[in-house]
Amino acid sequence: MAAAKAENLSVVVHGPGDLRLPVGIGDKNPPIIIVIIIIIIIIIIENYPIPEPGPNEVLLKMHSVGICGSDVHYWQHGRIGHFVVKKPMVLGHEASGTVVKVGSLVKHLQPGDRVAIEPGAPREPDEFCKIGRYNLSPTIFFCATPPDDGNLCRFYKHNANFCYKLPDNVTFEEGALIEPLSVGIHACRRAGVSLGNKIFVCGAGPIGLVSLLVAKAMGAAQVVVTDLSESRLLKAKEVGADFVLQISKESPQEIASEVEGLLGCKPDATIECTGVEASIQAGIYSTRSGGTLVLVGLGSEMTSVPLVHAATREVDIKGVFRYCNTWPIAISMLASKSVNVKPLVTHRFPLEKALEAFETSKKGLGLKVMLKCDPNDQNP
Amino acid sequence: MAAAKAENLSVVVHGPGDLRLPVGIGDKNPPIIIVIIIIIIIIIIENYPIPEPGPNEVLLKMHSVGICGSDVHYWQHGRIGHFVVKKPMVLGHEASGTVVKVGSLVKHLQPGDRVAIEPGAPREPDEFCKIGRYNLSPTIFFCATPPDDGNLCRFYKHNANFCYKLPDNVTFEEGALIEPLSVGIHACRRAGVSLGNKIFVCGAGPIGLVSLLVAKAMGAAQVVVTDLSESRLLKAKEVGADFVLQISKESPQEIASEVEGLLGCKPDATIECTGVEASIQAGIYSTRSGGTLVLVGLGSEMTSVPLVHAATREVDIKGVFRYCNTWPIAISMLASKSVNVKPLVTHRFPLEKALEAFETSKKGLGLKVMLKCDPNDQNP
Amino acid sequence: MAAAKAENLSVVVHGPGDLRLPVGIGDKNPPIIIVIIIIIIIIIIENYPIPEPGPNEVLLKMHSVGICGSDVHYWQHGRIGHFVVKKPMVLGHEASGTVVKVGSLVKHLQPGDRVAIEPGAPREPDEFCKIGRYNLSPTIFFCATPPDDGNLCRFYKHNANFCYKLPDNVTFEEGALIEPLSVGIHACRRAGVSLGNKIFVCGAGPIGLVSLLVAKAMGAAQVVVTDLSESRLLKAKEVGADFVLQISKESPQEIASEVEGLLGCKPDATIECTGVEASIQAGIYSTRSGGTLVLVGLGSEMTSVPLVHAATREVDIKGVFRYCNTWPIAISMLASKSVNVKPLVTHRFPLEKALEAFETSKKGLGLKVMLKCDPNDQNP
Amino acid sequence: MAAAKAENLSVVVHGPGDLRLPVGIGDKNPPIIIVIIIIIIIIIIENYPIPEPGPNEVLLKMHSVGICGSDVHYWQHGRIGHFVVKKPMVLGHEASGTVVKVGSLVKHLQPGDRVAIEPGAPREPDEFCKIGRYNLSPTIFFCATPPDDGNLCRFYKHNANFCYKLPDNVTFEEGALIEPLSVGIHACRRAGVSLGNKIFVCGAGPIGLVSLLVAKAMGAAQVVVTDLSESRLLKAKEVGADFVLQISKESPQEIASEVEGLLGCKPDATIECTGVEASIQAGIYSTRSGGTLVLVGLGSEMTSVPLVHAATREVDIKGVFRYCNTWPIAISMLASKSVNVKPLVTHRFPLEKALEAFETSKKGLGLKVMLKCDPNDQNP
Repeated sequence: MAAAKAENLSVVVHGPGDLRLPVGIGDKNPPIIIVIIIIIIIIIIENYPIPEPGPNEVLLKMHSVGICGSDVHYWQHGRIGHFVVKKPMVLGHEASGTVVKVGSLVKHLQPGDRVAIEPGAPREPDEFCKIGRYNLSPTIFFCATPPDDGNLCRFYKHNANFCYKLPDNVTFEEGALIEPLSVGIHACRRAGVSLGNKIFVCGAGPIGLVSLLVAKAMGAAQVVVTDLSESRLLKAKEVGADFVLQISKESPQEIASEVEGLLGCKPDATIECTGVEASIQAGIYSTRSGGTLVLVGLGSEMTSVPLVHAATREVDIKGVFRYCNTWPIAISMLASKSVNVKPLVTHRFPLEKALEAFETSKKGLGLKVMLKCDPNDQNP
Repeated sequence: MAAAKAENLSVVVHGPGDLRLPVGIGDKNPPIIIVIIIIIIIIIIENYPIPEPGPNEVLLKMHSVGICGSDVHYWQHGRIGHFVVKKPMVLGHEASGTVVKVGSLVKHLQPGDRVAIEPGAPREPDEFCKIGRYNLSPTIFFCATPPDDGNLCRFYKHNANFCYKLPDNVTFEEGALIEPLSVGIHACRRAGVSLGNKIFVCGAGPIGLVSLLVAKAMGAAQVVVTDLSESRLLKAKEVGADFVLQISKESPQEIASEVEGLLGCKPDATIECTGVEASIQAGIYSTRSGGTLVLVGLGSEMTSVPLVHAATREVDIKGVFRYCNTWPIAISMLASKSVNVKPLVTHRFPLEKALEAFETSKKGLGLKVMLKCDPNDQNP
Repeated sequence: MAAAKAENLSVVVHGPGDLRLPVGIGDKNPPIIIVIIIIIIIIIIENYPIPEPGPNEVLLKMHSVGICGSDVHYWQHGRIGHFVVKKPMVLGHEASGTVVKVGSLVKHLQPGDRVAIEPGAPREPDEFCKIGRYNLSPTIFFCATPPDDGNLCRFYKHNANFCYKLPDNVTFEEGALIEPLSVGIHACRRAGVSLGNKIFVCGAGPIGLVSLLVAKAMGAAQVVVTDLSESRLLKAKEVGADFVLQISKESPQEIASEVEGLLGCKPDATIECTGVEASIQAGIYSTRSGGTLVLVGLGSEMTSVPLVHAATREVDIKGVFRYCNTWPIAISMLASKSVNVKPLVTHRFPLEKALEAFETSKKGLGLKVMLKCDPNDQNP
Repeated sequence: MAAAKAENLSVVVHGPGDLRLPVGIGDKNPPIIIVIIIIIIIIIIENYPIPEPGPNEVLLKMHSVGICGSDVHYWQHGRIGHFVVKKPMVLGHEASGTVVKVGSLVKHLQPGDRVAIEPGAPREPDEFCKIGRYNLSPTIFFCATPPDDGNLCRFYKHNANFCYKLPDNVTFEEGALIEPLSVGIHACRRAGVSLGNKIFVCGAGPIGLVSLLVAKAMGAAQVVVTDLSESRLLKAKEVGADFVLQISKESPQEIASEVEGLLGCKPDATIECTGVEASIQAGIYSTRSGGTLVLVGLGSEMTSVPLVHAATREVDIKGVFRYCNTWPIAISMLASKSVNVKPLVTHRFPLEKALEAFETSKKGLGLKVMLKCDPNDQNP
């Protein structure tokens, strides 16, 4: 079985474990004993067995997997909210690959098919699935959310109904980028972005940029993007922002006023991708009466916001939790070249250099770091 | 013109004016002079001229006008938010009366018609009116919101398009109660209340009760109502609440847990009618994933809320500003006896005793205090 | 296995088979041979083996099963549209029973639970399921739609996720009636029935009546029901119709005019439950501009309708195909006594007398014929 | 007054009048007298007085007015449906111009402003206006719909609230083209066109083309356009159609099959712009389950359609009547260059040559014929 183990290199986060170091201090009798506890979370690139697909599953040879902020967060903190890494977990959920084996009941896929992977696959058709909001299902399987393994590895099996065939003119990397793009799609749909809208996007990181791309694709007439970083705003401008606004010390009301000045009116919707309290407040002050503020970025649990201001102008405040029903749309958009996500990829590493990739992503260098899982095909 | 003046007794709030009393203290030379400023806001029942209707207006002989919390608030504080009583203003906006004169262009009404009055009438078809959300029009005329006069008087003229004919089987008081009922309708529509829903209403004052009535009329299967006051909860139970929950020192999470216990599941929507921070928080914790929290009650400008909890469960937070497109619906409901608002009226006073009526309302005795403006007909 | 076979009495439709009778006529040589073909469709009450539930299924001891027009249609015609009875098929899909055995993966049910059965259970989470419109899934399993067996039998296994626990205060028959009630719920939701609406229901059969019941429960102020039959209209009046209108020879425009006269205005929505061309036309003429006509009844494939009249008044024409997401709502409504379906049941027969029951249903006597499958409990 | 008359050259349709010619035939005594009735509808270019704007109106110096099929239809037939030209009526409703005088109550416009004109302006805030569907108001003023005069003239007054200021980078002709563009916007919104959709547009005339343009702007991934005319399809291809399909003798089902073949799946929505029965049928067969067929083209009053096919697949059938709430959106789109309508204009004539322009339009040469009303500025 050593051979089998060697076949499936996987990027696994371990921890948080702790190392307890009892240290004796002083020459007193008895000496003072202090225990130093070191919390350890590490990523190990190790060999896992190649899994066997169940009747409704497919086995995939992984090709491209993007690193998401949440992957880095699990590595750095061992948890996100109440999701805690209690046992070793394979990272990765922005992924695409090739079908190598299909389960007995799978009809729509066959070996050789290139697919994009929707990382969240409901385990059962509960009340949320039945109404089409399966992302809210409390029992959903989700790649690289504890305790579910992700797909940053050589071989991975997944629910076949959540693997979507890629047309020839869509690359594996575009396929992997459908995951962040889906956040933008879900956010823009929840925002009700429609033809001719003026949109305000707070934050020019990967999620801010995909929200910008999607808003424009949905017919937004003008989008203004804000960020603290000039280089990020340059990227936003490059991929289509009509206006950018670098924030330094402005108050939320001042930001709202500047956004209105740039657009010539208040935006129809605001998509907040930072989670910063002041930015959320700016979103409320900015949005036109009857519009929508969508919360994509997450900050601290309690947030102080001008709710009366929002309520009396009927500015709706809506969050997004991941996404649902976005892969087919995204594939249509990519195939028809209606949206271009390629500029988002700034770094590439072979799977073996995952640690270096994670360090790059952690430092905030560039936008999207892509890991190439197939040693024989490191193309986009 | 003395006769004319005598014809239109009106309840007018004056102020906030101030009385400056310079007071000399001590025997020093020079003595210390302190100026005591007394803010004066008073209600005066005085005679106004009978107005003449414009081409699109009707002149109404007023019959029944309910006292709203905002009327009391203007009397007590001289302002609500940025709406300030800068010149004397007639109070009252929950009203019904009889047409006595019609403007030259009015076709759908004639003298003798009994009508309910929608107090908000847009001045121009702006962008908000055009999309059917005229309540958000910044230039809307609104009875008893400074500087616009209300209709707590003998004779009042109003935009004929915002006067709705009452069927014979709907009383004047029911007609006046359409105004608070409209808040409930608008709130329940914004909440998306639908057949078989479980609903949580925070607060058992008049607005909480109309929200309860409307939710049940829209097909809610079960409604739980919370309040601090046992007597208010008894009234809620009387008009149809399935469950009531008296709040004392529970945390927001505890309230959420108790509400879930009563309903057997989390409510589909929460209608918050208190404006209290802890209650808004309870609303977020309570509402099921994918549901809606509607903010009807208004509290302090900044509110601390668990936004991450709302966002990651896609609990939408929506405010209501007054209402729109509710009068025809309310009249249909009252005519078909689908909703019964009569139990809301607990006190009646003739117009001349308006001060007594306002004192009663201010003390929170009963629910709805009704003023009877027609000296010849003081019936409901 | 004779014992096992004896345990599960089932009502099975066979056919359409044909009996070919060659008949010789005349004394010519050779004689003329005519073949008389008799199409045979019969219902046989026979013993089936008791099925074994799969991992996600439950085995149910059936209690009450209503006879639907489609059951009678399969018996009489052997087909509905392109659904053809090619092999023997158990009838029945309006059903409730008791769990007697649960599959290995079932968590939310246990033996002894009383449940209502949603007859349509998707086989896979396809694109329609994912967006919450699983009724449109082309591969859905549906009781008593060829080739899928129904549940008019003693013992039946079903997808556990589509079995819904009944509260103690909801009877088995109410549970079985959730199926027709669901058609009314789905129709009224597609119609956008909302508070204060005036609704026009064409047809006072079981579906017309549940549409009426649901429309009222959703807050409709007034409902007018039409039918050819006076006795059906009496029933409609009994269960809550505000107005009834007996149709004889009126033109579609005349019907529209009479409906408008009764309601005092055009209805906000029309729910057409007959499928008759003239009635569909009347629905278009009747419905107010911007309203909706829902087609529940199905007639001939091609229908001649005043499309220009509908289009230029933006009267939307929407069909319903079965239902989705209705069982939990219906159970909430029944448990809270917000809707009363009990008057719909007019006849009851033990399972053994299924043929008599089908004859009764076919003759159009009464409304809903209920079959009682549990020999030890024939209660409602 | 001759001077005043000379100032406002207007294109006026007269008729239908009739000319009765009694003709005597034969030499009999008495001779047979036959009366020949000739229906006369003519366009006269004549001088009208320059109107004076009311308090809420503006006087406009007209610049560009497109000829619509309905203008030609009134000229050729004297009526459209129940709208009959009973007295002389100025034609034209696709228009833009410059404000030269403002009414006393107008605040948002001033002389010199370049504006696009929304031809439908409600006369009163009735029930349809209040809910934001003012296009359905039965009393709406609408340019060049009898008896309301249009704006194909030198000077025209209009409701100021329905005149929209054009940004500097939007030409007068683009402003005039907002009217047909609005039909496309309204149709696509009613169709629910959204990101990644596949759309089927029947008909490649001006309305088919604007529907195509708008669908793509709203994020449609692929649009297929059908027509009988090859040259029209070439234009469709030129302005962005992904696929075109020339129809000759295919059955509706065959067309549906070909459309599915081109798109790789059934379209999410179909926008029918021909009004031809077979094309409407093809729209029903084509559209995917749960999708929408929008009827823009109008044909004969009664249409035979496969309603059962639509209903059982929940394909909604929706019409459009003109449009509402489209001008601000269209201006945003044109200003941001998100949509390009300029290729639609194929012919231009000075106002004086209106008859020649109408002949060109009637012959179906080119797409949009534009009349230039300002003798001093004939630019686009």
